[in-house]
Amino acid sequence: MQTPLLAELIDALRVLPGVGQKTAQRMAFHLLQHDRQDGLVLAETLQRALRGIRHCTRCRNFAEETLCPICASSKRDASQICVVETPADVDAIESAGVYQGQYFVLMGHLSPIDGIGPDELGLDALAKRLAEGDVSELILALNPSVEGEATAWYIQNMAREHGVKVSRLAQGVPFGAELEYLDQQTLAQAFQARQQA
Amino acid sequence: MQTPLLAELIDALRVLPGVGQKTAQRMAFHLLQHDRQDGLVLAETLQRALRGIRHCTRCRNFAEETLCPICASSKRDASQICVVETPADVDAIESAGVYQGQYFVLMGHLSPIDGIGPDELGLDALAKRLAEGDVSELILALNPSVEGEATAWYIQNMAREHGVKVSRLAQGVPFGAELEYLDQQTLAQAFQARQQA
Repeated sequence: MQTPLLAELIDALRVLPGVGQKTAQRMAFHLLQHDRQDGLVLAETLQRALRGIRHCTRCRNFAEETLCPICASSKRDASQICVVETPADVDAIESAGVYQGQYFVLMGHLSPIDGIGPDELGLDALAKRLAEGDVSELILALNPSVEGEATAWYIQNMAREHGVKVSRLAQGVPFGAELEYLDQQTLAQAFQARQQA
Repeated sequence: MQTPLLAELIDALRVLPGVGQKTAQRMAFHLLQHDRQDGLVLAETLQRALRGIRHCTRCRNFAEETLCPICASSKRDASQICVVETPADVDAIESAGVYQGQYFVLMGHLSPIDGIGPDELGLDALAKRLAEGDVSELILALNPSVEGEATAWYIQNMAREHGVKVSRLAQGVPFGAELEYLDQQTLAQAFQARQQA
């Protein structure tokens, strides 16, 4: 005996990733019972963000202006481009604090079965930047998945055509890991890429 | 390097129960990358629901009119009142399809430490309904927790003062359970309340 409006709210909440019927119901009840004011703030912020946030014309990351803060900054080294899959990856690398270059955000990876080819990832824009000749190194920081590997391979070839040096993040034992619990693939890669001490 | 608006959106999403920083970020990225239109529908539905849904003046359940659909229905038996803690409990009992009476929704349980006393649960309104003399049975369907028990005990005394019969949901082995995995408390209650076959 849910009211029509309540059923509509529960249905609308299911657009959020990882939220099924039961969780949506719990969220709706929580907002209605305890947090109507904050719920209205959420609604208003959603509208402003979804209408106001666009993509940086240079690196495709989220931006509120034509350029994102990183591309607009004169302190970032424009000769290095780090290619990542998502804006979350940019945040992770920024918080590590070791990289001073610029980014290119694919917003996904090659996935022909989902209709995602080079065009959908904006690789024509990346190729244009490489052709301009200001880029000396392209750093591939893609996820170590099948799709990530395929995407990396494609971009690697593209960079070679333009004579730009390509590097990839080192693969190996993560900091703090216990060898005992590490997967075979990681361990095998760490052995193959072992370095002289 | 999140844009201010993106940071604001992630922050606003954390008002949802069970949503922390990482989940909020994932939700924000998902809506921005894949589902802007549905996100705007969610925002608009949130506003309509949070402004339009109120409480039934009779049973305190969610309602869009003065009375909820159950209290407004002439087909429901007004001589039975089932007392539950939340609107979700009403939904659960309704979907079981065995009850034709009315409800009273506490919207919580007694919890002095959180400042929730009889007034916050609307028990004065329930007492008034009992005093009117039309109610012949009060069915307590509260959660089997310490707070639920305390609340049940309080309401039980109240009903006795008004000479109204009080019953409680049977406690025992749930349908489909395996005795082997049942907790001791449930098993003990099922033994004590055993019925002649």
